[in-house]
Amino acid sequence: MSNENFDVVVVGGGPAGIISAVTARKYYPDKKILLIKNTEIGVVPCGIPYMFKTLFKPEDNIMGDAPLQKNNVSIMVDEVVAIDRKVKTIKTKKGQELTYEKLILATGSNPILPPIKGIDQPNVYPIVKELGYLKQLKERVLKAKNVLIIGGGFIGVEFADELAGIAGLTVHLVEFLPHLLQNSFDEEFGIMAEEKLKAKGVNILLNCKVQELKEGKGATEAYLSNGACLRADMVILGIGAVPNTKLAREAGLDLGKGKGIWVDEYMRTQDPDVFAVGDCAGKNDFFTRKDLPVMLASTATAEARVAGSNLYQLKVVRENKGTIAIYSTWIDGLVMGSGGLTEAAAKKEGFEIVVGQAEAPNKHPAAMPGAEKTRLKLIFSKQSGIVMGGQVAGGMSAGEIINIVGMAIQKRVSCTELETLQMATHPHLTAAPTMYPLVLAAQDAAGKI
Amino acid sequence: MSNENFDVVVVGGGPAGIISAVTARKYYPDKKILLIKNTEIGVVPCGIPYMFKTLFKPEDNIMGDAPLQKNNVSIMVDEVVAIDRKVKTIKTKKGQELTYEKLILATGSNPILPPIKGIDQPNVYPIVKELGYLKQLKERVLKAKNVLIIGGGFIGVEFADELAGIAGLTVHLVEFLPHLLQNSFDEEFGIMAEEKLKAKGVNILLNCKVQELKEGKGATEAYLSNGACLRADMVILGIGAVPNTKLAREAGLDLGKGKGIWVDEYMRTQDPDVFAVGDCAGKNDFFTRKDLPVMLASTATAEARVAGSNLYQLKVVRENKGTIAIYSTWIDGLVMGSGGLTEAAAKKEGFEIVVGQAEAPNKHPAAMPGAEKTRLKLIFSKQSGIVMGGQVAGGMSAGEIINIVGMAIQKRVSCTELETLQMATHPHLTAAPTMYPLVLAAQDAAGKI
Repeated sequence: MSNENFDVVVVGGGPAGIISAVTARKYYPDKKILLIKNTEIGVVPCGIPYMFKTLFKPEDNIMGDAPLQKNNVSIMVDEVVAIDRKVKTIKTKKGQELTYEKLILATGSNPILPPIKGIDQPNVYPIVKELGYLKQLKERVLKAKNVLIIGGGFIGVEFADELAGIAGLTVHLVEFLPHLLQNSFDEEFGIMAEEKLKAKGVNILLNCKVQELKEGKGATEAYLSNGACLRADMVILGIGAVPNTKLAREAGLDLGKGKGIWVDEYMRTQDPDVFAVGDCAGKNDFFTRKDLPVMLASTATAEARVAGSNLYQLKVVRENKGTIAIYSTWIDGLVMGSGGLTEAAAKKEGFEIVVGQAEAPNKHPAAMPGAEKTRLKLIFSKQSGIVMGGQVAGGMSAGEIINIVGMAIQKRVSCTELETLQMATHPHLTAAPTMYPLVLAAQDAAGKI
Repeated sequence: MSNENFDVVVVGGGPAGIISAVTARKYYPDKKILLIKNTEIGVVPCGIPYMFKTLFKPEDNIMGDAPLQKNNVSIMVDEVVAIDRKVKTIKTKKGQELTYEKLILATGSNPILPPIKGIDQPNVYPIVKELGYLKQLKERVLKAKNVLIIGGGFIGVEFADELAGIAGLTVHLVEFLPHLLQNSFDEEFGIMAEEKLKAKGVNILLNCKVQELKEGKGATEAYLSNGACLRADMVILGIGAVPNTKLAREAGLDLGKGKGIWVDEYMRTQDPDVFAVGDCAGKNDFFTRKDLPVMLASTATAEARVAGSNLYQLKVVRENKGTIAIYSTWIDGLVMGSGGLTEAAAKKEGFEIVVGQAEAPNKHPAAMPGAEKTRLKLIFSKQSGIVMGGQVAGGMSAGEIINIVGMAIQKRVSCTELETLQMATHPHLTAAPTMYPLVLAAQDAAGKI
């Protein structure tokens, strides 16, 4: 394969890379497309916590090559070590030199290693998105009696929930902020998550930092900012990640303010033949245009679709300018979702807002079997009246309710429009039409505008 | 209470009436509001099919007075028999005469009695939204060995599903169109509903009309257009309803083209002090402005919110002009939803369209426990590129997925916007970000535009 020529080369085998390649194929059927990935067998990122108990076997979470093969995308397992943008070639670790017309960087992110003394101990496990690594981690977890998870964001919370379900395993979760999930949810929602995990036996330590990790007798000792010492058989890091921009930096590409590779609305770097998508690419907040440190597979795939379709010509004109943070999670059956700005974030940023709240059963009448409460909070600009954010907690359907909110944010829907929204309701499936939470929350806010 | 004066009088105790009154209270806190209903104990309309088995007892489906009492709305059980618009008074059956400043007609609809010979037999039951009647109907059903349901729309299908779950009861379902649910779904979705009901033991007769009902020995004999004769212990009519416009007609209000009371964008009749909402009010199709024969509690409540807020001044400016048909249903665990135009309806109306299809598991990876397939079909205007309709079939979350589609239709979202939609995804809750059905269906359509 040495010195082979390709039209489109994608660097990275995660969701951003795969969807870039597949979209490129769709829009440019005649191009020769290659995807280079540095792990033989990758995994579905969001499925990682569920490889420990929920999924029957870790292999159920493999990120397969089928979509690439089906779309006639060549695959190479190797690592790109250098880009020469002048002559449009790349070099790989195994010594390949390849040419490209269009290059897409989907190099992802690297887990953060916090500056804790002793963080480099063998008992400390960051989350690496690779099957072999995660299988070993699972074996290790199943032998442990207690585990310390550092970080109370999505990764930490989902790991805590999953591992607490393993019989005989004690889980400690340490978060330095006052509440879990605080970057994505307002306090009252964070508290719901805390209650769920506590009820499942997780030992949650808030406002607390790990200051040092020491290898003790058969266990790791964690010295905490509250003065206590925790002993755990192993430590899992759920602290987040930083954009992997090494390759781009060495190729002289602009890294903006250092939060990811600079890209324009069409995911082009300042070199029009080099695109960047996913965790490695910079993101601008939908409302402020500031850097937004969001790393989500869903964001990555949306960017990949923009890049893949616009490689040779700008075909798909981007209409949603800027990134919204939009997530959902599941904590022992409690579904939580957040989209756009939280109340705290909006206030911190200086927006004048009103908040609308609603609570209703997710089936109707409330006596329908299996009915659960949905709680919804919407954030509106007071003067403009448009919805800027929302948070939901409830049963399974809340996972898609947050996507109704997301659509409303992206379309800058007004409070009035939500008040008079036409929606489908059904006893088995939704709240009553008289109590549909989006409508009620908008009405609640309307009274305050 | 004779000759009492009220500021706002609402006629009708269904969802349209209740939400009109509650919204009026919210926007006009100082007004004296009265709601007159003609049934002592009403029921939640969409919950009626589930009073036969799913709900523990029929009383669980009562439409309670609590929202009215909480909002200081007076309640009167009586029937309005005449309106004098000149002097702004109404007369009731029990002989009351009341004045109003603003009158809201929420008189609902009456079940259709099809012109079948023998339809007036005592063994034939229309669906009447009244607790006492429905309790008797339930007792009757529980004694029956077999029941014939006439009509394969939502009511008929939901009754068939519910009654087929009662041990020892045989259910026959007769529909004169080629498929079930054909007014709201394209054929391939109707077939899914048919398969579900057949698997549950329902005897479905399509392209078939009941021509005569005769009282035979201990059973009703139904003579069908296919020449057969069905014997059933009882017959339930699930054929739909016609607007109840008697009161409005006698008060000289314009009935438009006869499909409901004529109303403007703010639910005002041609008399600015008389509003009409819900089943009794005319509706215009969102895309064509033609009459739209949709009778749904969700539509009714949206209209009620427009009317209630705009009684004395136009406060809440309506932004969604026109009604979309948007429904969901549940057939033995299969969730089906439809919003806007079907492919068949769009073609019949003359729209040049492209269709996008997608199919994906509703959890990811697909090995997550409980994952079910979501099937989504979107209808786009070919030239304008906006979404005009959608249909979904799948697991529980599909009940809210159709509301994402509904929001997209109401906001005239483009195919491009859906292709690059930002959404929340989670292993337990949604399709993978690489396979989110709205995005895939939009991509599929984009290839054809």
